[in-house]
Amino acid sequence: MIPQNQWYVAAYGREITTGELFGRTVCGESILFWRTGAGEVTAMSDRCVHRRFPLSQAPTRLEGDRVICGYHGFTYGPDGVCVAVPGQTRVPRTARLRPYPVVEQDSFVWVFIGDPGLADPTRIPRAPWLASPDYTTVSGMEPLAARFELLVDNLLDLSHETYLHGGYIGTPEVAGTPITTQVDDEAGVVHVSRRMADAECPPFYSRSTGLTGRISRWQDIEYTPPCLYLLHSRIAPVGSEPRPDGTDPDAFHVEVVYAITPETEHSTHDFWAVARDFAPGDEEVSAFLAEQNRTVVLQDVAALDVLERVIAAEPEGYQELSINIDTGGLAARRMLARLGAATPSTAAV
Amino acid sequence: MIPQNQWYVAAYGREITTGELFGRTVCGESILFWRTGAGEVTAMSDRCVHRRFPLSQAPTRLEGDRVICGYHGFTYGPDGVCVAVPGQTRVPRTARLRPYPVVEQDSFVWVFIGDPGLADPTRIPRAPWLASPDYTTVSGMEPLAARFELLVDNLLDLSHETYLHGGYIGTPEVAGTPITTQVDDEAGVVHVSRRMADAECPPFYSRSTGLTGRISRWQDIEYTPPCLYLLHSRIAPVGSEPRPDGTDPDAFHVEVVYAITPETEHSTHDFWAVARDFAPGDEEVSAFLAEQNRTVVLQDVAALDVLERVIAAEPEGYQELSINIDTGGLAARRMLARLGAATPSTAAV
Amino acid sequence: MIPQNQWYVAAYGREITTGELFGRTVCGESILFWRTGAGEVTAMSDRCVHRRFPLSQAPTRLEGDRVICGYHGFTYGPDGVCVAVPGQTRVPRTARLRPYPVVEQDSFVWVFIGDPGLADPTRIPRAPWLASPDYTTVSGMEPLAARFELLVDNLLDLSHETYLHGGYIGTPEVAGTPITTQVDDEAGVVHVSRRMADAECPPFYSRSTGLTGRISRWQDIEYTPPCLYLLHSRIAPVGSEPRPDGTDPDAFHVEVVYAITPETEHSTHDFWAVARDFAPGDEEVSAFLAEQNRTVVLQDVAALDVLERVIAAEPEGYQELSINIDTGGLAARRMLARLGAATPSTAAV
Repeated sequence: MIPQNQWYVAAYGREITTGELFGRTVCGESILFWRTGAGEVTAMSDRCVHRRFPLSQAPTRLEGDRVICGYHGFTYGPDGVCVAVPGQTRVPRTARLRPYPVVEQDSFVWVFIGDPGLADPTRIPRAPWLASPDYTTVSGMEPLAARFELLVDNLLDLSHETYLHGGYIGTPEVAGTPITTQVDDEAGVVHVSRRMADAECPPFYSRSTGLTGRISRWQDIEYTPPCLYLLHSRIAPVGSEPRPDGTDPDAFHVEVVYAITPETEHSTHDFWAVARDFAPGDEEVSAFLAEQNRTVVLQDVAALDVLERVIAAEPEGYQELSINIDTGGLAARRMLARLGAATPSTAAV
Repeated sequence: MIPQNQWYVAAYGREITTGELFGRTVCGESILFWRTGAGEVTAMSDRCVHRRFPLSQAPTRLEGDRVICGYHGFTYGPDGVCVAVPGQTRVPRTARLRPYPVVEQDSFVWVFIGDPGLADPTRIPRAPWLASPDYTTVSGMEPLAARFELLVDNLLDLSHETYLHGGYIGTPEVAGTPITTQVDDEAGVVHVSRRMADAECPPFYSRSTGLTGRISRWQDIEYTPPCLYLLHSRIAPVGSEPRPDGTDPDAFHVEVVYAITPETEHSTHDFWAVARDFAPGDEEVSAFLAEQNRTVVLQDVAALDVLERVIAAEPEGYQELSINIDTGGLAARRMLARLGAATPSTAAV
Repeated sequence: MIPQNQWYVAAYGREITTGELFGRTVCGESILFWRTGAGEVTAMSDRCVHRRFPLSQAPTRLEGDRVICGYHGFTYGPDGVCVAVPGQTRVPRTARLRPYPVVEQDSFVWVFIGDPGLADPTRIPRAPWLASPDYTTVSGMEPLAARFELLVDNLLDLSHETYLHGGYIGTPEVAGTPITTQVDDEAGVVHVSRRMADAECPPFYSRSTGLTGRISRWQDIEYTPPCLYLLHSRIAPVGSEPRPDGTDPDAFHVEVVYAITPETEHSTHDFWAVARDFAPGDEEVSAFLAEQNRTVVLQDVAALDVLERVIAAEPEGYQELSINIDTGGLAARRMLARLGAATPSTAAV
């Protein structure tokens, strides 16, 4: 079940440009975006009020800050209010596209799904590295033909790196090292931590950092259901620790960010970003990390697409078996279930 | 809901030739057609009574006026009666394909869907131009992956020409000019009329008629639910009127005909024809009008296919907003609803 | 309905090789097979107990006789018992893949679907020619997008050879010659026999046997529902009979074997084999019979795929008409219905 009354990442800011219509389905709702002449991102229902033509689709077009439906010419302003209809001068008062609260932050365009009166922009979780001058970031989005819960499971249990991503980011120590899990119900965050004191350095990190020997590798996950997943990754020579003053000059820090946005009940927008505090502006390192991370994401996509089909074909009441590595994923599921239960059954759609 | 006990266009007469089997699904019913040696079109169920093999499909074949099933050899005459079965000489009395009333008229093959006892050929609406020596006609059929009601909506409200067909048959005046609507419940016809006294001449008409200046453009729609749609189109220099004696020598007349035949609940055969009373036999004009009208129909098909998918994905109870331009379409919907309500729930299928 | 508590052919033995994982769905159940170092075929559920990843799918891999899940590394022995999990040394006692009874016999791998306590290997029907040195066999498997019952219908009524397989194995005499049917309820076998005393020799037999004139052709079917179908085919010059001592030196014998295995409710594995007692080891005859029989099977597949779509689209309660040629098929349906009725509604899945 997709939690309502939540903020979700709909797009990167760069995907929405002035003068172009952009449609994306978020949580089963078809939303039209465009960037006004003033640079603001708008979000409104992507269905003309007249005969439901998708406004993101040609021959619908923008004229300045007005969108003109390609079927019969109904015309809307950036607030979704209809300002012209064909064949008559009077515009019906109810002719208005549903507007969505929208916030552009940390390179993402966030949209609020649910009752707009409950939209509090201060509750949007942050990923400040993605727009910080101190970090160099590569990012992308892959479509996933699987329910978002499968991606949450996947990301909360990184022991799969050893098997599914061997040769890229997985080494034997990931699956072999126990985790610690902390659930902060007040903040609505699940923390999962795995500290490998003496581990092989996988190609993802050795080629980007230049470290050739064994490493200390920390994976600190911070998941704010439903949408934002952060992996604070610290890579350093074995034995190196952060200093008492908080600085950490011998380590390499990578902030891996995922935004997990349901497209429908059974498909997901898998946004991924890799921000690093080293080799700033080094194009070769950027290209390498982008290609590697995309490959890793596509390995996940292939596996999760299979699992979605497996679930669709299996009998009701199939039982999974969980072990210690699943503590974080199970905590995330419980938190998602609570968010889902809080969803009114008569959710506006 | 597809109205039963109605005549529908199944094909152009030219599609059904002597010696060849022709299958088409009409209103969800799979029908086999062929033309006998005597030139008559037959219509019967396209399912062998034995193990339901589609008779329109190879290796089923015609031998004279008998069709021999390609699976086990059940053999039928043009009345659908089985005349031979394998392995025995006695043919069961009930071995008979369901025959359909069929009439060839105005270049169309009409078939009656419902109780054959109610089939009255005199109730088939006419489109005499299509087979008249006074008119030159181009025609075709495009498959539509959308319910037939969406095509009815589309054709009853031509204001969409301005937006969806701009550069072909649309100009600003179409959407800008109000319509008058008349409903003739006794005859079962919806009339929608739009008279543009001083309008731009779109390429569709300027290149076919040679008119270069502004025009008087009349669009008189005559829709006989469920299947036949006529658009009487009159194009003339601004100010020109038909004479009191009924002649209209300064005008160009185009009879645009659509037959709207449900294939299934969610797909439609979109038959279109353009008959003109000028440039008779001019191949270049014919080729131009055929290519233009097909392009326009495919623009509709693209838009309506999208709308079908939108409707399939939307929540129950979605509300449209209607304005003055929709008067004709709403009247057509009411008439279709009455025809559908008259359909017995135990309709023979 | 697919009968439970039955043996089904899952594969040819040659499809399952040491060191390679092999997945196949049988009766809707996804099963993992591999051949141990000792040469035994194993069969177990193809879903990891942890997060249901299909074990037949890369990057899952075998290490000796252990299968290591490609998602999180759960590791299983050939009995399906889990022997290792990531991140902890204790393996949960319930971590075990469901094992399937499996028997390799007559070149087939048979698997028991249902309650393993009911699996009696002595009840597996035999097709000894396929592994006999006295016969030369060609075989294959074609996937069928149709319910297995349609293939049973097809094979029990060979009158279709005349129409669907004309020019290959059909001649006019097949459809023209009456059959005799015997049902052995105790043994659970349907026998259908057609003896053609003076028939045209179809290419399938003339080119393989060298017989050029008219022939005596016997088709003796022996179907053991649900899975095994045998066609004992005897081809001989007209007038030739087996001798009183049981020998039959003037005849050519072909044992045509089909294993009819439901993949799902609506798809089937169509295993076919042709074993002959003549031209032993003649590669040219083998290649000809393999190519011909595969062509014939694909003609059936094309027709039955169509019928499956016809059935899916037709209204409830559609009535077929049956005649004498259907006696065997109807007996097979009754026997299958009894086997299906014996299936507990709470069948383990």
